[in-house]
Formats: sequence, structure tokens, C-alpha cells
Amino acid sequence: VPLPSEFLDGLRSIAGAEYVRTDESSRTAFAADALKRGAHPPDAVIFPDGADQISAVVRLCREHKVPFVPRGGGSGFTGGSVPVRGGLVISLERMNRILEIDEANLIAVVEPNVITGQLQEAVERVGLFYPPDPSSLNQCAIGGNVAECAGGPRAFKYGTTKQYVLGLEAVLPNGDVVRTGGKVVKNVVGYDLTHLLVGSEGTLAIITRVILRLIPKPPARTTLRATFDTIEAAADAVTRVIAHRVIPASLELIDGDSLEAVAQYLNVRALAPERTAGLLLIEVDGLAEAVAEEAVRCEQACREAGATEILRAKDEAERQELWRVRRELSPSLKTVSPIKFNHDVVVPKARIPDLFGLVRRLKEEYGLRIPCFGHAGDGNIHVNIMVTPGNEEEMRRAHDAERVLFQGVVALEGSISGEHGIGFAKARFLPIELSQPTIELMKRVKQAFDPDGLLNPGKIFPD
Amino acid sequence: VPLPSEFLDGLRSIAGAEYVRTDESSRTAFAADALKRGAHPPDAVIFPDGADQISAVVRLCREHKVPFVPRGGGSGFTGGSVPVRGGLVISLERMNRILEIDEANLIAVVEPNVITGQLQEAVERVGLFYPPDPSSLNQCAIGGNVAECAGGPRAFKYGTTKQYVLGLEAVLPNGDVVRTGGKVVKNVVGYDLTHLLVGSEGTLAIITRVILRLIPKPPARTTLRATFDTIEAAADAVTRVIAHRVIPASLELIDGDSLEAVAQYLNVRALAPERTAGLLLIEVDGLAEAVAEEAVRCEQACREAGATEILRAKDEAERQELWRVRRELSPSLKTVSPIKFNHDVVVPKARIPDLFGLVRRLKEEYGLRIPCFGHAGDGNIHVNIMVTPGNEEEMRRAHDAERVLFQGVVALEGSISGEHGIGFAKARFLPIELSQPTIELMKRVKQAFDPDGLLNPGKIFPD
Repeated sequence: VPLPSEFLDGLRSIAGAEYVRTDESSRTAFAADALKRGAHPPDAVIFPDGADQISAVVRLCREHKVPFVPRGGGSGFTGGSVPVRGGLVISLERMNRILEIDEANLIAVVEPNVITGQLQEAVERVGLFYPPDPSSLNQCAIGGNVAECAGGPRAFKYGTTKQYVLGLEAVLPNGDVVRTGGKVVKNVVGYDLTHLLVGSEGTLAIITRVILRLIPKPPARTTLRATFDTIEAAADAVTRVIAHRVIPASLELIDGDSLEAVAQYLNVRALAPERTAGLLLIEVDGLAEAVAEEAVRCEQACREAGATEILRAKDEAERQELWRVRRELSPSLKTVSPIKFNHDVVVPKARIPDLFGLVRRLKEEYGLRIPCFGHAGDGNIHVNIMVTPGNEEEMRRAHDAERVLFQGVVALEGSISGEHGIGFAKARFLPIELSQPTIELMKRVKQAFDPDGLLNPGKIFPD
Repeated sequence: VPLPSEFLDGLRSIAGAEYVRTDESSRTAFAADALKRGAHPPDAVIFPDGADQISAVVRLCREHKVPFVPRGGGSGFTGGSVPVRGGLVISLERMNRILEIDEANLIAVVEPNVITGQLQEAVERVGLFYPPDPSSLNQCAIGGNVAECAGGPRAFKYGTTKQYVLGLEAVLPNGDVVRTGGKVVKNVVGYDLTHLLVGSEGTLAIITRVILRLIPKPPARTTLRATFDTIEAAADAVTRVIAHRVIPASLELIDGDSLEAVAQYLNVRALAPERTAGLLLIEVDGLAEAVAEEAVRCEQACREAGATEILRAKDEAERQELWRVRRELSPSLKTVSPIKFNHDVVVPKARIPDLFGLVRRLKEEYGLRIPCFGHAGDGNIHVNIMVTPGNEEEMRRAHDAERVLFQGVVALEGSISGEHGIGFAKARFLPIELSQPTIELMKRVKQAFDPDGLLNPGKIFPD
């Protein structure tokens, strides 16, 4: 059903005709995210300039029963900003101002479409720090980070986005504009709607303003690389680092298959000692005195675990070199195969060896290539199931394997998603992790916000 | 209306007759909390042993339309665990086991009635740390801390209870047992019900198990005391500490009136240099090397702000002596007057001088004694409006002043409660801070959990 013309006229009178698009190329541009899988292109896209316009748009959508989907950077991996029933995409891209960086109160106030990397640069210029660092930080927007509760390598020490959101302004599906939380770290007045909205994947409200907590920028950091000839030894080093009471800012694990992919991509013989099955990138940060001490403890932990080589970056150039292999992972895996199921599963960190044992069984039983890497400190490992384009039979094996993976992760007391969310891509797996009463409760919460079900329908919950 | 006998028989058959009480003294014991103001004593009290019994009790309450209120340590300040319509109190006191302290994964799993201080001791024995430290830590229970999102002095650096809750098991008002979150730090599967339950004051579900995140115990700490002859100078020191990029573990501010009360109570001439109007207790912790550097920076910040004296504890005995004045505050103020309105307001920390300006005006205009102290790093100041027992006229002035205080705090972009919650004591003030659409939304969330309104009725929302 095409959108009625009085609806489109209404949109134009709210935002101005130049900010309402119904042409084919706009509709296509907003039909998918980084998952690169559309479901149903939007019938229109609107670019409002603030909460008031969004409120009016939402009321209009309600009147005409048109579904609407908010969209930030469009860099999600599970389709959170992708319409599945057409309707209207509400792009927040014009709402991209940093409104305030308050050094005395360690607070930033931003519009939703501020790019995460740009916020980080702005606060670091005044000696402050916004830790969450999803790898898409140069494309993704704070609003989307909040909607998905984005993480990244630094989450082990610093926590994910939710630890930094103090308050929100949001437009409810009924058009009401609400403010939650505020500019204070402590606030126990009524329910914590702020943290209910964080991670709600744009299904409860449209975020129009974000109040973020900042911290002082750590003045020093040291980066180490340690290699191991088994994944178990690398995981053992992770456990020993923690036993030495060090919480590194980053504790990244890369397996042998992933390393091999990067070596091929970069066309070098090897990036690490021969037969390296696990590589750890460890970064400690803080005051220089503490960093020096913590780096020594990390080296000791890695030696105890049987590291085959330990490198320590002497300067920023060497640091960049150590991180290079991590940065090249994504493009490298694309050359292995353009199709990968990139799963961001999490297990309690002491169970990382069990997770890798599970992956090994999947490789063998299903005959699949499954390079893994990720945030070992959190137990958050990206398990990449590779599929050759056009190989339907391999695709079926991959689908079978991902279900077994998720079941195994839940059996290990883990979670099927630590960073990417559910969106529409993983909705059918929700019952593997959540019980029916829990899902029913979540649906009642959704109902409390969105009784008509027009905001971002078809997400999170299985049909 | 007395409880029907088949209801009481049902309770007895669920938990055993010895765990169901209807005698006068039990009902009185569970009629109030630390607020010391009852509303309507319970008609019965039950002591279940776990989630299954609670689930059965809740279903029975629903069947008979009996309101029910969960209770932990009973140390709240706003009546969160106090029945206002009688009915059944569900005491969690038998559910007091530490189920797991998992050193490798930095996690503890506890039943709700583990006493906070006992958990802290247990985890510190293995070199770990559970930071939230409400001053009632020897009476209060983790379940209540979670329900109220307890804070304490260390919240500035370490955050409040919500930063440490990874997962919950809870009984819903319909009797369903749900599990939220889990043993992993990252989990974005469905809505974050965990953090919706944190701070929900026992109005959404009854918490039966808590999964807590732990951190390594900071190996060293240093305690400083700095005195100032104006509150503005003390507040300036707070700002300067932050400008020196130090986040102390504690940053406690005590005003001149509070100091005077402690001096009288301890019967000493003075606890600090004459004319001290503001005293800061600063504690930095971490690795020894970092602590030494941060202590120097704090001293420098205090000197820059014009400190009249700076003391540094040389050992644990001196540390205890510096903290003594803080510990004696509560008993001291009780000797000033047994009636105090203890308000835990919060403002952005750079606005602490404005808050004290507001308090000064209230003292003058309303002729009241209002000693203040609190967690300056958070901007969370305990404003104690003192009332002479039996002085009805002063009581009226105090009530007028508290409303003006709350309005002023909200005008300063603060919050009317940073730690104690709303309960029934502050419900009538809710609309000062929250807009009508926000309150309506919260009520719909309550409805989604508790459609019959039987769980802890009469809390948070004004009638």
C-alpha cells in the first residue's frame, strides 16, 4: 500500500519538503545497515531537525498507522535501523551537534547523530575521555550506540555504553517527549528508564538527546603483544592477568585462523611466530607509575602461561604496528569469503577455552571455516562462520552450526549477543537464551511504550 | 479486613507454620524501616526460603487480592519495605547465603539477604572488592541495595549498585520466576530488565538472586583531610581536584554546622581549625605508585583553593581518626534533635556552592537548623532539616522549606534523591522532578509488571 498523499503532505509541512524523500535511491539507501540484508525498503525517509518535529511526525504516523523506524549511523550488524514492514525511516542525521562539554561536571550533552569518534576527539582535546569504542566508531552515532548498548575493546576495564549514559531525552511512540535521568551520577527518582532505553534497539522510543558521563583521560598507556601456541595457553594468560589483579583497558584475543587470514591479506609470510594459535593484544592505561607496574605484571602472567614471544611497544608507531593485525581483521576475513555470520557471543571469561572447544567441534562436524577473535577480558568473542557465496549446502551447514553455537554458549552461562543486539537478524534465536515468561514480560514492556506496535516493528521478538 | 483463614492456611502450607507470623510484635517489627514512620502494619509476615516458595506465596496473594511487600534489611529511609495498606510482608531474611565467589570471572552470586558488609569482607578476603558502601552496610542487605540502587562515599569513583549488578533472578507479581542478565559483563539480548529492576524499590518484582560484578581490591589508599573557612573554598577544592584529573575513591564534604554538632556530641572544643566552614575527607586508592601521585595532586588542589590545614593519615589508626568525624555525624545530629528530614539531594558537582547558597537562604527565611554533609564528588549532599519534637510550627516551616529545597535542586539540574529513593515518604514530591508524561510512562511500566497493583502498593507515585 503506498503512503497516502495527505500523510506525505503532513510530513512535508512538519520538516519542509526538502527533508522528505520518497525517491527510489533514498529508499534503497535506507533499506539496509551493515548487515547488508534488507527486509522491506521504507516508503519514505524524513530528516527532522529535533524532538519537536519528531514528535509531530510520530503523531502523524500514529494517525495514519504507518510504521516508523529511527536511524542513526546505519552501522548496526543486526538490522536494528532497518524497516521490515516499510513505512517511514526517521533519519537523525541532521541532529549531530555536540551541545555541551562540561569539564567541571565531567559531562557531555549531545544530539543523537554525533559520530562516536568525533565525540571522543572533542573530549580528548580537553583532557577528558569517553571510553566506549565500537570498531565502527568513525561511522556510528552516539544515538545508535545508546540504542544498541555498544561495547568495544575497552569495555573490560571501562564498561559499555550503558555505564556512560546519565540521561536521555526521547520521543515516545505516542508523541510525548520525556526526559530521563539527568546531569547527575546518582539519581534514584522513579524507574531507571534511561537504562531501559539503552539497548532497547530503537523499539521503545526515539532518542533525541544524550547526557554522557566522561572521565579524565588516562595520561599513559602501554601495549603488549603476546603469542601462544595454543588457544588454551592464551586463555590461561587472560586468567593469570586477572589473578595478578590487573584489569587491562584492552585484552584482545586473535586465533590462528584469523591471523592466517590477515597474513594472506597483507601478503606476508607470517605476522607472528610460526604455529601461533593465539595472539593477545594487551593494553594497560592510567597514571604512568601504575601503567609501568601493570605492564610488568601482564608480562609475567603471559610468561607463566607459556608465551612464545612477548613484545612491548616502545612508542606510538610500534603501538600502531601491534594493533595493525587487529584492524586488518575485518577486511582480511572479507577476502576469505564475503559472506560471514559474525556472531558476538559472550561467555564468562574463564570459559573461553570451552567456547573454543565448541568452535573446534563445529569446524569438524560441520566442515566450516570459523576464525575467531574478540574481547577476551569480557569473554566476548566474535565467532565468524564463513560461507562461500553460492554454496547453498554450506549455507545450510552454517545455519545449523550457528544454532548449535548459540545453544552451547547459553549452556556455558553466556549470552548470544554481547554487542550487536538482536534486531531482526537474531530474533528467532531469542528463545534459546530467554525463557518464555521473560520474553512475555519484555513484550508487555514494549506494549507499555508502544501499544500500537508502530515503532520499529518486527525486531527483537520472534514472530 | 482480617486476612481470610484459608489464605493464612495456604501460607502455612507453603512455608511451614513456624515461618508465618501474625502476632502483634511481629507485625509491629515489620511495620516501619529506618524512616521510623509506619503507615499500616502488615497483617502477616512470612519468611520463605527461596524463589519457589515466594512464587507460590505471590500466586496465593493474587488469588485473595492481598497486597504483599518484600523486605530485606529494613534500613531504608523512605519506607520502601513498609506496607501502607497492610497485607503480607515477605521477609527475605532466610535467603542470606553467598552462593558463589568466582575469582576467575570476578563474579559473586548471592541471595538477597546477604548483608552488604559481610559480602565485602568475604570478597576482600580473596583480594577482590565490592565497592558500593551505603553507611548502613552492617545492617542493609544486597537485595535492598539493588532495589534502592544504594550508593555511598565510593560512588564517585566506582559508581553505585547498578554498576555492579550483572543479573537477577526475580519473582514477578504473577508468580513467574524470571532470570535477567547473567554472568557476563556484556549482554544485549532483549531489554535490560536487570537495570529496570535496580532502583525499582520493590515495586516491580521480588529479587531472589543477584549476580554481582567484582573488581580487584585496590592494594593501597591514602586519606587526606583538608579544612576551609568557607563552603565555597571547599567546593572549589573539589572542582580543582577534578581539574587535576584525579577521581578520588571518596570525596566527602562536611559543613560547619555538622562539625559543630559532632564536637558537641564528642564534648571536645573543636575538631578542626577555628571557623572551619567546610571539611573535606579525600581518599585515593589504587596501585601504590598512582596513589602517591594522586595524593600530591589532591593536596595541591586543596592548597590552591585556600585550605587552612591539610592532614594526611600516616597509618590506619590515623585514617580511622580522620574518618571518625564522618562516622559520628549521624549520632551527633540525633542529639541536636531526634527529628530530622534527611534529604539526599544531588546537583551537578560544580553547582554545590549554589546548593549551599540555597540552604543558607532556607536557614534564614525559615529560621531552621540545616546541617549538611555528603558525597561532594557526586554532588550528593545530605541536607538535614532539624525539627524540635513537639514544635508544630517549626515542623510546618520545615515542610515548607523541604519543598523549596526540592524545587531549587531541580532548578539546579539536580535530583531530589540520589540514594534513598522515593518510597512513600517522598511520593508527593515526584512531580517536582518528573513531568506528567514521564510519570504516566512509569505507571504503564508498573502496570506491565503488576497489573493488579498488589506488589508494594502506594510507593513512588503520588496518589
